[in-house]
Amino acid sequence: MEKFRKNINAMTGYVPGFQPDDADVVKLNTNENPYPPSPKVMEAIASISTDSLRRYPPVYWDTFRQAAGNVLKIDPNSIVCGNGGDEILTILVRCCCDNQRPLAYPVSTYSLYPILANIQDCQTIEIPFTSDGQIPDKLFDIDAGLTILCNPNAPSTTLVAKEDVARLTESLSGVLLIDEAYVDFADGHCLDLVERFDNVAILRSMSKGYSLAGLRFGYCVASKPIVEAMCKVKDSYNLNAITQAAATAAIMDQDWLNTNVQKVKEQRTRLTIELRKLGLVIPDSQTNFLLAKVVQTEAKKIYQKLLERKIFIRYFEQADLADKIRITIGTEEQNTLLINALSEILS
Amino acid sequence: MEKFRKNINAMTGYVPGFQPDDADVVKLNTNENPYPPSPKVMEAIASISTDSLRRYPPVYWDTFRQAAGNVLKIDPNSIVCGNGGDEILTILVRCCCDNQRPLAYPVSTYSLYPILANIQDCQTIEIPFTSDGQIPDKLFDIDAGLTILCNPNAPSTTLVAKEDVARLTESLSGVLLIDEAYVDFADGHCLDLVERFDNVAILRSMSKGYSLAGLRFGYCVASKPIVEAMCKVKDSYNLNAITQAAATAAIMDQDWLNTNVQKVKEQRTRLTIELRKLGLVIPDSQTNFLLAKVVQTEAKKIYQKLLERKIFIRYFEQADLADKIRITIGTEEQNTLLINALSEILS
Repeated sequence: MEKFRKNINAMTGYVPGFQPDDADVVKLNTNENPYPPSPKVMEAIASISTDSLRRYPPVYWDTFRQAAGNVLKIDPNSIVCGNGGDEILTILVRCCCDNQRPLAYPVSTYSLYPILANIQDCQTIEIPFTSDGQIPDKLFDIDAGLTILCNPNAPSTTLVAKEDVARLTESLSGVLLIDEAYVDFADGHCLDLVERFDNVAILRSMSKGYSLAGLRFGYCVASKPIVEAMCKVKDSYNLNAITQAAATAAIMDQDWLNTNVQKVKEQRTRLTIELRKLGLVIPDSQTNFLLAKVVQTEAKKIYQKLLERKIFIRYFEQADLADKIRITIGTEEQNTLLINALSEILS
Repeated sequence: MEKFRKNINAMTGYVPGFQPDDADVVKLNTNENPYPPSPKVMEAIASISTDSLRRYPPVYWDTFRQAAGNVLKIDPNSIVCGNGGDEILTILVRCCCDNQRPLAYPVSTYSLYPILANIQDCQTIEIPFTSDGQIPDKLFDIDAGLTILCNPNAPSTTLVAKEDVARLTESLSGVLLIDEAYVDFADGHCLDLVERFDNVAILRSMSKGYSLAGLRFGYCVASKPIVEAMCKVKDSYNLNAITQAAATAAIMDQDWLNTNVQKVKEQRTRLTIELRKLGLVIPDSQTNFLLAKVVQTEAKKIYQKLLERKIFIRYFEQADLADKIRITIGTEEQNTLLINALSEILS
């Protein structure tokens, strides 16, 4: 007996964006929010009791479910919480995919999806988005165990309208997961599709809008059969007591979310305008980052020259993204540093 | 296409021990530690920074690895951390098991193992422990993808000596996971087998000895190939920044651990003696709970009569445990209440 399964031996793990130890850098490479999380989150964390650490945490995240149900005006029992959006993805792939049930998604998109398929040893069906970031016709005819639509999509920053997503949901017999990790920065969302279809699940994250990438909290909104299947597969106590308290405080502070999202959007507009002036080709973004096509020189060179100036952005070593750079929206000050550096590099 | 895989539709999820909301109960049903966690853990949690929440957390748990490496005198890179011991189990089952690679373990044991096999859609090979809780001969000849030995075992409370575990490791071509969740209360451990064998992994938990069931922190110590495979399968950011800081503070406070473990052991001796006086048949326990055989009446009745008195213990609805009750070691005061109640019920 070999130690591990063949697919595990053959695969490569996910490579996270670089996290420099050095605090003295401009970090625009992993789509974190540049503003701090709500003070109410910090209070919730600091006031955790010894008893809630000593005992096992709530299995079904009761307090968060109630709070999120109120805020989002949805049934609390339609919510499944995860250790980051990534755990929601993992759980759903384990519910829906195996060697007879492929995973389908339009590309280019979040690079974790094919890795989850490798771990699960299921086939992937990858179909390119249309050139303007819309659902490709072929996707409507695919019979996959699970289809994932990242919406708004990373790294394209584009959004598919709800009625188009509804048409896709109707056409699929398997489950459709709409990965709305970046939805707080978008002009629309698909939450109410859960009421219309029993084969749709919506994924939300607190890593972006809520400035809580370090907390690892994501949640899923879905029909009863999907919630029940996910609860069989999740670790029984998958979220610790502190995380549940912090996430509850975060979702209850919608003012904080809205204020920070507004600031990011203002900077997004400014950065888009200024970088277009420098000759970069940038679609309007529905996320907290920009995908910029470089026409004057090699994109990778720009990435490296910014790195020399301690400005971190993301460059992807893959054919369809080779001429592009991904830039997270920073604070006003960080964005000014970036604009000035790019202005020098490109002139 | 059905929504979910057949095995997911067919299976039942894990049923966690009951967690009463009522603070006014004697809770001896889920093997939590009755004493609070270290004050240093509480300090670490309260002093978490907004920046460590805003940014993605460390992928490879650097600070915990260093601290645990020092405390346990092992290579920091031989450690994999998980969201509770349960996540370590999940990751290893995903690395090692599929429909060609069964999961083997001696029974009765932790009831999560067969559920993880159901989720992974692999066969289970269950072989009864010997009557005195030792490794059954048959287990040496099994060719499983993963073999799990819970040691000390739950719910039998028995320990297998290290050299017997070493013989088992040698006989297996697949990976052996030694689940040492309860090891802080035992007379021995198997940590140094990791240096002798490259197919062994040791699982540790902070839920029991460290009084941190609510934190969800477990870790695994294993050879380089096992660590590498597990890191491919784990979610990239599987532990949040707070959990990593808290677990680091916990493992550095060995005095706190040792003091609490000593108190639990003293109460374990007392409870064993007193309950034997009442006629219960109890093997010496190597864990923080007792497994007591009831000879005078039905075990389930005792469970129910204690429940009426707001004393929660655990009863398992399965053939080989039908005449037994499982009792977590409580504080001196809780144990006195239990002894008095049992004395009344049994007289």
